[in-house]
Amino acid sequence: MPETAAGGTPEERLEALGLTLPDPAVAVGSYAMYVRTGPWLQLAGHGAFDRGRPTHLGRVGRELSTEEGAIAARDAMLGLLATVRGELGSLSAVARFVRVAVYVRSAPGFAEQHLVANGATDLLVRVFGDAIGSPARTALGVAELPLGFAVELDAVVEVRGGGSGER
Amino acid sequence: MPETAAGGTPEERLEALGLTLPDPAVAVGSYAMYVRTGPWLQLAGHGAFDRGRPTHLGRVGRELSTEEGAIAARDAMLGLLATVRGELGSLSAVARFVRVAVYVRSAPGFAEQHLVANGATDLLVRVFGDAIGSPARTALGVAELPLGFAVELDAVVEVRGGGSGER
Amino acid sequence: MPETAAGGTPEERLEALGLTLPDPAVAVGSYAMYVRTGPWLQLAGHGAFDRGRPTHLGRVGRELSTEEGAIAARDAMLGLLATVRGELGSLSAVARFVRVAVYVRSAPGFAEQHLVANGATDLLVRVFGDAIGSPARTALGVAELPLGFAVELDAVVEVRGGGSGER
Repeated sequence: MPETAAGGTPEERLEALGLTLPDPAVAVGSYAMYVRTGPWLQLAGHGAFDRGRPTHLGRVGRELSTEEGAIAARDAMLGLLATVRGELGSLSAVARFVRVAVYVRSAPGFAEQHLVANGATDLLVRVFGDAIGSPARTALGVAELPLGFAVELDAVVEVRGGGSGER
Repeated sequence: MPETAAGGTPEERLEALGLTLPDPAVAVGSYAMYVRTGPWLQLAGHGAFDRGRPTHLGRVGRELSTEEGAIAARDAMLGLLATVRGELGSLSAVARFVRVAVYVRSAPGFAEQHLVANGATDLLVRVFGDAIGSPARTALGVAELPLGFAVELDAVVEVRGGGSGER
Repeated sequence: MPETAAGGTPEERLEALGLTLPDPAVAVGSYAMYVRTGPWLQLAGHGAFDRGRPTHLGRVGRELSTEEGAIAARDAMLGLLATVRGELGSLSAVARFVRVAVYVRSAPGFAEQHLVANGATDLLVRVFGDAIGSPARTALGVAELPLGFAVELDAVVEVRGGGSGER
């Protein structure tokens, strides 16, 4: 279980971890990176980008180890957080990560998708604490992913003060 | 980015595109094609059917090209729209496509799931415009799909005047 | 279409079917088995466990037949129901299964994911009846699953009297 940094804003905790958010990604097609509905943000599928270039390509269990896959998942989550902050202005506006789905491009026989997914949700718990950052999670081993990503993830996030069921 | 037809109802825009909705599909098992909860419709997984027969079978990147996969995605979305219209009476009752997930049955190494998925969401943008028809999208490459479909998709749709969080 | 037992509580119907719920599963990582948001429970991915040990491992269409896959799906759903009951106190508090996604670890060419998924949703219909137990369902054939599970599933459940959009 990851250690939760005490105090500070999520942005300060990210900085304390030596991590920075990338620029928010741009949709590679006819869709939106997020849609707000009621008090929720539905996030589109996010892979890991560095300065607009996709990173961490390949299959986990072959080109990437489990540990490298977990870093890919963490970096994809940094991208998702960039989208969230871009919309909400501040990560402090997050009330709860409701759901995170982690899609791991898996070599045949690879069965540690949950450990790869920890790379994404450990980050959430470190930055937001358990009460906000611990989502209902689904980890799957998929055959292929757009652009050859090793990991893609999406999420549902509840927004603070967003009203309940309000639009 | 697809051109958005100006004016007219979604049904009229479909007709202008030369497209017609199939009959709403019937569940092939113990489930419902949609469930309404609050102001949202949760749609079940939809493949492409023509007069009750599944179409566009095979793997994208092998039996189907990327372009053929995009047509499979468009046709699966036509089926989903048929379900939506069957429930709401009119496509004008759609307030927003919140989420669309596109599952692409992929040959090994195929990495253009996002281009296949554009077949589905380009249609939404053409028929509903960006503000309604541009969902948070997830595109995945899956190993296999029911009945051998090349593409399956599901969605969350917000309904106009459905109330907020109301049942 | 499965027969729906008349009368009795969901717990009594389970007993009449000779089925018992396992102990609620514990998250194998930095996540929660469920998150409550508004009147909904978002359930994490669940596999089948027996006394804390994963069961029904392998690929459907190779190590497992379609029928064995359906039993794996049923047993994973029993685990999910254990989580629901653990949170709500009683299965009678379920207003509606809104969505169930069934992820089937599939051998190449296996195309009966919908029949495997029936193992999960037939159970819901038998225990809760059609009006509550028939969700919008998505059945997919995935490449690999955590711990080598044959079937994983997640769900969105609407809670009775949970208010509408209320937290």
